Amino acid sequence: MSKKILRVDMSKLKAKFEDFPEEYATMGGRALTSTIVSNEVPPTCHPLGPNNKVVFAPGIVTGATAPTSGRMSVGGKSPLTGGIKEANAGTNFAQKMGRMRIAAIIVEGKYEGNDYFLLKITNDGTEFINATKWSGKGLYQTYKKLFQEFGSQVGICGVGIAAELLGAASGICFNDPEGLPSRYAGRGGLGAVMASKGLKFIVVDETGASGVEIVNKDLFNQGSNKLRSALLTHDLTKPQGSLNTYGTNVLLNVINEAGALPHRNFATGQDDRAANISGEEKAEQIKKRGGVRPHFCSPGCIIQCSEIWTKPGGKDPVGVLEYESVWALGANCGIYNLDDVGELNRACNNLGLDTIEAGDTIAVAMEGGLLSFGDGKGALKLMKEVHKKTPTGRIIANGTAFTGQAYGVTRIPVVKGQGLPAYDPRPIKGIGVTYATTPMGADHTAGYAIAPEILGVGGTLDPRDPKKAEVSRNLQIATAFIDSTGYCLFIAFACLDIPEGLEGVVESVNGVLGTKLTVDDIATIGRQIIDTELAFNKAAGFSAADDRLPEFFEEEKLPPHDVVFGVSNEELDNVF
Amino acid sequence: MSKKILRVDMSKLKAKFEDFPEEYATMGGRALTSTIVSNEVPPTCHPLGPNNKVVFAPGIVTGATAPTSGRMSVGGKSPLTGGIKEANAGTNFAQKMGRMRIAAIIVEGKYEGNDYFLLKITNDGTEFINATKWSGKGLYQTYKKLFQEFGSQVGICGVGIAAELLGAASGICFNDPEGLPSRYAGRGGLGAVMASKGLKFIVVDETGASGVEIVNKDLFNQGSNKLRSALLTHDLTKPQGSLNTYGTNVLLNVINEAGALPHRNFATGQDDRAANISGEEKAEQIKKRGGVRPHFCSPGCIIQCSEIWTKPGGKDPVGVLEYESVWALGANCGIYNLDDVGELNRACNNLGLDTIEAGDTIAVAMEGGLLSFGDGKGALKLMKEVHKKTPTGRIIANGTAFTGQAYGVTRIPVVKGQGLPAYDPRPIKGIGVTYATTPMGADHTAGYAIAPEILGVGGTLDPRDPKKAEVSRNLQIATAFIDSTGYCLFIAFACLDIPEGLEGVVESVNGVLGTKLTVDDIATIGRQIIDTELAFNKAAGFSAADDRLPEFFEEEKLPPHDVVFGVSNEELDNVF
Repeated sequence: MSKKILRVDMSKLKAKFEDFPEEYATMGGRALTSTIVSNEVPPTCHPLGPNNKVVFAPGIVTGATAPTSGRMSVGGKSPLTGGIKEANAGTNFAQKMGRMRIAAIIVEGKYEGNDYFLLKITNDGTEFINATKWSGKGLYQTYKKLFQEFGSQVGICGVGIAAELLGAASGICFNDPEGLPSRYAGRGGLGAVMASKGLKFIVVDETGASGVEIVNKDLFNQGSNKLRSALLTHDLTKPQGSLNTYGTNVLLNVINEAGALPHRNFATGQDDRAANISGEEKAEQIKKRGGVRPHFCSPGCIIQCSEIWTKPGGKDPVGVLEYESVWALGANCGIYNLDDVGELNRACNNLGLDTIEAGDTIAVAMEGGLLSFGDGKGALKLMKEVHKKTPTGRIIANGTAFTGQAYGVTRIPVVKGQGLPAYDPRPIKGIGVTYATTPMGADHTAGYAIAPEILGVGGTLDPRDPKKAEVSRNLQIATAFIDSTGYCLFIAFACLDIPEGLEGVVESVNGVLGTKLTVDDIATIGRQIIDTELAFNKAAGFSAADDRLPEFFEEEKLPPHDVVFGVSNEELDNVF
Repeated sequence: MSKKILRVDMSKLKAKFEDFPEEYATMGGRALTSTIVSNEVPPTCHPLGPNNKVVFAPGIVTGATAPTSGRMSVGGKSPLTGGIKEANAGTNFAQKMGRMRIAAIIVEGKYEGNDYFLLKITNDGTEFINATKWSGKGLYQTYKKLFQEFGSQVGICGVGIAAELLGAASGICFNDPEGLPSRYAGRGGLGAVMASKGLKFIVVDETGASGVEIVNKDLFNQGSNKLRSALLTHDLTKPQGSLNTYGTNVLLNVINEAGALPHRNFATGQDDRAANISGEEKAEQIKKRGGVRPHFCSPGCIIQCSEIWTKPGGKDPVGVLEYESVWALGANCGIYNLDDVGELNRACNNLGLDTIEAGDTIAVAMEGGLLSFGDGKGALKLMKEVHKKTPTGRIIANGTAFTGQAYGVTRIPVVKGQGLPAYDPRPIKGIGVTYATTPMGADHTAGYAIAPEILGVGGTLDPRDPKKAEVSRNLQIATAFIDSTGYCLFIAFACLDIPEGLEGVVESVNGVLGTKLTVDDIATIGRQIIDTELAFNKAAGFSAADDRLPEFFEEEKLPPHDVVFGVSNEELDNVF
């Protein structure tokens, strides 16, 4: 049995397996979701109408024994940006799909009534189960009960209350290894797209699955081993390396030190209180509290940057507190208390909200006078408004730009409608070029210029040099390729510095597909993916004016370095 | 003394008169506002930030004795569409400005504190007066007191509570002859732009003004007389003609009969109950109640399509109930009760809300389940939410698209973010071409194809013929010219059918300016204005995909004619 596509028509509550088309044969992950969306979704359709689709695709090697490769891509037209979106998460849900040889799930149409459904996928077929009873309920409780009902061996994907509100800040939630609803394809509001169709959960049970089909096992193993060695060697990715020891939040002190950690809605780039919510402090607290660190988001990961954050005494496990989330819900809101940040992260996971968008949103609400900067308890109350589906909750669930408009705020940190991540683009210009030009809207993962600009990985670049079109372009292209393989983007740290690592990636992909790609092909493949995405966005109405940062990044100097962004429009337009 | 520009810097609370630049010498009204906005406002600026401006300009002949010419243009970057905006109103405020020889008021910068100001302009100079005490108050009460304070001879322009909320549905309000706050440059959220700067009112006192400078009085009088004759002759514009007798709302029965009156958020084009809110019924009621009809919006109007609607017994005068308002707040919300419509119109005027946008917004809120279609009292409660500045009020004050997103509605009747007016584009395709392609966002006044398609004015066209690029283009171009002269657009009815009328327009303009324009120059001048606006929009990020109607106009057939829009993208792109 070779790979299949599962097409789910929510208007008829029917799901059917289709042959995996030849034209998609070498695609996985982002390449597949973006190509299917581009082929099947009218670019000017309403993102929450029947003509949008949501596409799930594990990466090419996902589900096999390749290290750190449990990534799931989700694609569709974004209700947040109005353009194409790929959001991805690390979760065993992806690995199960890979082993079941389901290359993609395409969810289309729209259920006409008010009910929600759960789609159960097993090796024997599919089943729709009414899931309306879970409406209005938090995902922690819900996932716990769903695992009890369907068995601990399943993978669960779902949407929460924010998506029921059709909020543009709602993500799609996947389980972590303990079954916590903490691994998110968070960005761009794809949760609302899924909910708009009447689909609340997908449960995959891989019992009896054939496993990933691997055309050349020796080559696959050779490649996997090369990558494994690179990951085990590189300072950032090795056991007891910085990601393993402190998680992604190791960045908090680093970026604060660089004067580029946005505090209080991008008002300053540095604050002494940052240390209170740093990766170092968090690791210490996890030890004290009886949480788990390090921890993997999906089996087979070498880096293991994840963790289980809990309340004191190991209670109420949240899952991981990523750097982005700690920044967004912490420093960006002037909240320098890990307990508050942890509870806010739990609230986001529980509601199905993207943590980055939620943090930007709360900070903008603070600037708009709805609550004060630093008011962690007030921020939690805002989350309760979402839970209760009040008008305020509806505003918050629609994200940063929407909340900014509701409260008359003009300093709104978004590109293409999507909230900026945890690096101020003024002192670190390459990441700003990526924010401005990626088809995804402000997204650090789309072309992580922080690597050469701050971490000294993949070379060393002056963060203040405004000539960053080339590095952003190259990183965006390489990222589009990696996002398609199923490997976690963090393998790039090792691959940028250790050539054998990248060779290993390509060899393992060749092993699975039976292709003869070389490292040199990465640029062509990655560029093709991005060109597909750019064409969709152009047809949806985007133009060069959308590839810009908000004007306040040119008008307000960011302390302590007192710089504006200052990258020319020509440089931005030179990226693609 | 020749014409001046008054430049108002709200960041310093300073206003200074500047010479009227030579390059603007032949411009007035929309030509002037659009050119100044294009020259001075960065297209990608935040519409509510310090870099946007709001520009007021009376037309070329406004303030002189030319008939039906009391129009005021207001321009800026629209917070509703994100593009350039010109909205205009008929009001003696414009005539006073004309006679004071103030060609334009340019309001720029932003007051840094929380106070609001009133700018008083007299022949002797300008004065800023703290107006914070009027914040949160309805405009009926406020205008009454302002006229008491400043004298009945002044003209007042102001913004209401919706603008204080920086709502994108807020208009700029001008007084009618009785001092009622009922003449609006309503569309596109320019009220919020004015409020964002800290400017709440402008009061003009023309005492001692020199009057409009007229280079060739004989020619001016000759032209005015020609136009006057045409207006007095044409069936639509003459005394006891249809506009004079029933007001603009004479259209309600006509358009309902044509199956193109949108009912209940554009769900059907015809409903028997339309007669309850028709112009005929309204005229009857005004007579019974002791209101006023006919009535002029500004002195010197021959058509006199305006009126004063009141509660029974002549109480609580509202001002005019235009066709657009009666449709938006009535039929489009399933409300077929003139008392409810009148109170809703009063609420909009009182809050400073655009009635068209408000009606579209309420209908979308109804579709989103916030209240039921037909619930007039519920709609009035929504208006109270705006008054009380609640979260729901903030949603409503931001208009149709915003409210649709907040409540998860996918049938959102907007183009470029602006709510559609009172003609369904499916059975009357030319007006739909105008909605789609005008730089203003959905706007019937931008190129009123209803004239030839339904009224048989300026020729007769089949409303169902999808080939409407040419007629829409020609009407849009002619309109841009008329909007610059200061003449009311309604003179076009007479001018389209009576060539001497149009000659009179051109001669009167030549009389004022000393120019030698011919009727043939209208196309060049009008096109230049539109090209200026299109260039601004392009730089602001608009592309062909923005020149489209929402997808539901292609997917849902409108009863009773059961047609979709069906104008090709090529036809739309052929307009400009």
